[in-house]
Amino acid sequence: MRFVSYLRDGAVRHGRLGEAGEGDEIAELGDGDLHALVQRGLSTADGAEPVARVPLAGVTLLAPLTRPGKLLAAAANYQDHVTETGGAPLDKSRLSPRLFLKPPTSIVGPGAVIPLPDVSREIDWEAELAVVIGRPARNVAVAGALDHVAGYMASNDVSARSMDYGFERDTDDKAVWFFDWLAGKWCDGFAPLGPWLLSAAAAGDPQAIPVRLDVNGVTKQRGSTKDMIFTVAELVAHASRLMTLEPGDVILTGTPSGVGAATGEYLKAGDEMTVDLGPLGILRNTVA
Amino acid sequence: MRFVSYLRDGAVRHGRLGEAGEGDEIAELGDGDLHALVQRGLSTADGAEPVARVPLAGVTLLAPLTRPGKLLAAAANYQDHVTETGGAPLDKSRLSPRLFLKPPTSIVGPGAVIPLPDVSREIDWEAELAVVIGRPARNVAVAGALDHVAGYMASNDVSARSMDYGFERDTDDKAVWFFDWLAGKWCDGFAPLGPWLLSAAAAGDPQAIPVRLDVNGVTKQRGSTKDMIFTVAELVAHASRLMTLEPGDVILTGTPSGVGAATGEYLKAGDEMTVDLGPLGILRNTVA
Repeated sequence: MRFVSYLRDGAVRHGRLGEAGEGDEIAELGDGDLHALVQRGLSTADGAEPVARVPLAGVTLLAPLTRPGKLLAAAANYQDHVTETGGAPLDKSRLSPRLFLKPPTSIVGPGAVIPLPDVSREIDWEAELAVVIGRPARNVAVAGALDHVAGYMASNDVSARSMDYGFERDTDDKAVWFFDWLAGKWCDGFAPLGPWLLSAAAAGDPQAIPVRLDVNGVTKQRGSTKDMIFTVAELVAHASRLMTLEPGDVILTGTPSGVGAATGEYLKAGDEMTVDLGPLGILRNTVA
Repeated sequence: MRFVSYLRDGAVRHGRLGEAGEGDEIAELGDGDLHALVQRGLSTADGAEPVARVPLAGVTLLAPLTRPGKLLAAAANYQDHVTETGGAPLDKSRLSPRLFLKPPTSIVGPGAVIPLPDVSREIDWEAELAVVIGRPARNVAVAGALDHVAGYMASNDVSARSMDYGFERDTDDKAVWFFDWLAGKWCDGFAPLGPWLLSAAAAGDPQAIPVRLDVNGVTKQRGSTKDMIFTVAELVAHASRLMTLEPGDVILTGTPSGVGAATGEYLKAGDEMTVDLGPLGILRNTVA
């Protein structure tokens, strides 16, 4: 099942999107975004009587989860992305997942315009599979980790590759480099999510999802979640060793090769990014 | 004015704490934690009629803000802390603040027991001044930055100094070191906040607050916010260049010297940490 959050008559609501072929209609299920439904369990929507039936064309889609408790993301989780930017291939047997946090103010929905920030000239794209936690997870094993996943979304881990604060800094210092890298993930609009949340039951194997990103119609990234270094189950299990994962928490799972940093091509005002994750839909955002 | 969030009869409420000397009574102002009051502005509590008067002894204090949108923190913001752990003194003229994010699941209140995590044996303390944003801040200048601050709290940026995931990793790799450092900030309970939120008007100069931390009654840290490398105003201004700061967002401002990592002394089950920030109160937490 596909679920959406949206603005209708100025209010945030959520509902179930008809199956492909049923026509683009939303069975509205209630007020607010999908957070409460994810907490109850998406399957509770099965027998729920819609409060309204709304044409998709009459609403503005939002990020399915507009304010998750945590927005985690994995760095360096596809070998071809690690090597395209000059890194040596990673030896998974001696490695743990590399996680960081993005702030809720980075989240926007499909169609949203992302402002180019003043602090960087090098804004880049990263098409990613986003995982939505459905049941609390604390110290879960890899084998059972997917039982804690409610579903999946398309996402774009928009990234500033260097920061320019207007004065000279010691950028040879590894710490300067790292804190710049981290801050480059945080700007407003740097985490588009959507257009919908596909239930885990409907999504099937999370390691068999195509990941594609075009800029102005030119394909830049074309990969598959089968090439992740750490699988979704491994990422969830690892994160749950560090802290409690809660329903509605979101984990971005890394990007395959084809980012702008590999060729030095960055986004400019007016550019349109199109993230296509097959059954998870098409997530389109422009920068301005 | 001092404001508190607390549990009473199983529900979260917020109120104003009497002035020192008035007796330990809370003028209850409403349901939920202080987030809504911070959004409206703390000064709107001035003429508000209390819905109840509650003895402080009859409630369980919570973190004043239990679920801020963002919990930011500054690393390496006191020279004596930078040098005590082997670093060279930082040259502020060639530096920008080093910020990172902690997850909402790290937040606990005064008196809460912090579980020692399975993933590290080296759990350390960091007494810090916490800043609460009161008005939205986007690209604000240093000169006006404090106008966006609602108030201040005591806090403890509890930190795991190394991670042990049960297998050998390449810890000479700077990226491994850095992502471990980051994850070591995230464990459940690693961000005690409280006991109260002191309004900016009552707090006066944020660069003149004593910062002290005892472990089991033995003083480990004794500093002052006057020794910050980047002031509160500079931290707020810098963070607001990276992203929009929203009312209720919290910024931890770094710790002075005296952490356990400097001597190799870490927390063990049963230890009690006492953070004393003078007018911001005493924040006590044990580990187990």
